[in-house]
Amino acid sequence: MMEKNLTRREFLVGTGSFAAGAAVGAVLGGGVFGLLDVQAAETVAPPAPWKYVKLDPEVVRKKGWEMYWQGGCMKGAAGAIITELQEKVGFPYTMLPLEVFRYGSAGIGGWGTICGAANGAAYAMGLVLPNADISTLVSELLGWYSETALPTSKHDAYAKYPTTVQSVAGNPLCHTSVSKWCDASGLREDSDERKDRCAKITGDSAARAVELLNAYFDKTFAPVYKISAETESCRACHVTRMSDTLTKMECAPCHPNAHKK
Amino acid sequence: MMEKNLTRREFLVGTGSFAAGAAVGAVLGGGVFGLLDVQAAETVAPPAPWKYVKLDPEVVRKKGWEMYWQGGCMKGAAGAIITELQEKVGFPYTMLPLEVFRYGSAGIGGWGTICGAANGAAYAMGLVLPNADISTLVSELLGWYSETALPTSKHDAYAKYPTTVQSVAGNPLCHTSVSKWCDASGLREDSDERKDRCAKITGDSAARAVELLNAYFDKTFAPVYKISAETESCRACHVTRMSDTLTKMECAPCHPNAHKK
Repeated sequence: MMEKNLTRREFLVGTGSFAAGAAVGAVLGGGVFGLLDVQAAETVAPPAPWKYVKLDPEVVRKKGWEMYWQGGCMKGAAGAIITELQEKVGFPYTMLPLEVFRYGSAGIGGWGTICGAANGAAYAMGLVLPNADISTLVSELLGWYSETALPTSKHDAYAKYPTTVQSVAGNPLCHTSVSKWCDASGLREDSDERKDRCAKITGDSAARAVELLNAYFDKTFAPVYKISAETESCRACHVTRMSDTLTKMECAPCHPNAHKK
Repeated sequence: MMEKNLTRREFLVGTGSFAAGAAVGAVLGGGVFGLLDVQAAETVAPPAPWKYVKLDPEVVRKKGWEMYWQGGCMKGAAGAIITELQEKVGFPYTMLPLEVFRYGSAGIGGWGTICGAANGAAYAMGLVLPNADISTLVSELLGWYSETALPTSKHDAYAKYPTTVQSVAGNPLCHTSVSKWCDASGLREDSDERKDRCAKITGDSAARAVELLNAYFDKTFAPVYKISAETESCRACHVTRMSDTLTKMECAPCHPNAHKK
């Protein structure tokens, strides 16, 4: 089992956790670190949640805008937070792949479902929160996304275009968010201005996630998003009494004729 | 900088990539492996895409169902594929955290946006595909999810309930998918049968992702999902000519009154 003749390339690429661990174990000869200890440090993710240190939302906001141009909205939002934690904490954040998040661009493969900026920021939140609190904080992020006029005007020092038009998405879906902004701005989805707008929202979503996390770890977090009275009246039957659906999104925009004959 | 007195715990937990790398480098004394090489193998994610080996969709399907009960739909779908790759490939898949995917449960924090099974399976696809092909294959997964009667009946040997009711979601949103099934089954969203249904779809989505990946790496992948003629007629103006939106979802369900006075 102790493959002493592993080539350097095989070691670096890693042909299996045991083989890689065994190679180092063999070299160390069970000296300072035992075989299993080295293997664990090298190739196994530590238990959740991972260590969080408070980050500067403004640093993350700018980084999100920048990283958008290197792989899209989800990569930008997740990457802005993860690369900051790589700098401030290091391992295990250094183990996370970032190119994978390209899958979330344009609401996942161009489908316009969840905004990739929200999806990526939520992933990063999931890394550092205890299981019991993930849903509450991620839900708050999506509530903020839905009701806030975006993008913020905090990117003007470096963005391609000034923030002259903001829009309220109404829900966290890429399709709705982009459509509302196109309507408000009169600009095209395939314009460079729209991409710059989404780059800004990438930074804004990552920054908001960091604000929520900082508050959580300061023990000052309190949810502020409230579902509208109109939607709560739908939920009283459809979520609570009949329990025939599941959502926190506003009902009326997609169901304008509900209960109308 | 060479912290030779790092405790074993500090080494294992990792207080920073350089510190951890330096500790091993110091022990190795620059012998078989140089400092930077060991550091890289230990704490830095290899470049994308990661190595894929063909997986058995039926093994992944069952594992997805099982893992759903250990952390929800997104964790189940991503985890089914990732843990299989941990077994078959090992490193670097062993470095990936899985608890993080709890963020995607119930369409992300209960919002009912993207189905977590689709979100998690798409994440796993993003790990192994070249950047240029991620969107195409992930889009195909979401197309399959939208138009397929789910869950499949392939879980009856182990699931809590037989698959007696299937429904077609029409889009990849958790909210729509769950609502259609509640309507078809007459069962409640908060029922154990609904959870079992979502556990099955977790397995089905992971299995479909594996089928798509196996075909891709066999060079037999060809997209089959087609946007409906009705929606293409909307897209001819709204996506192509006017470019005022972004989506592949069906238009009519949420916009029943479009162009009607």
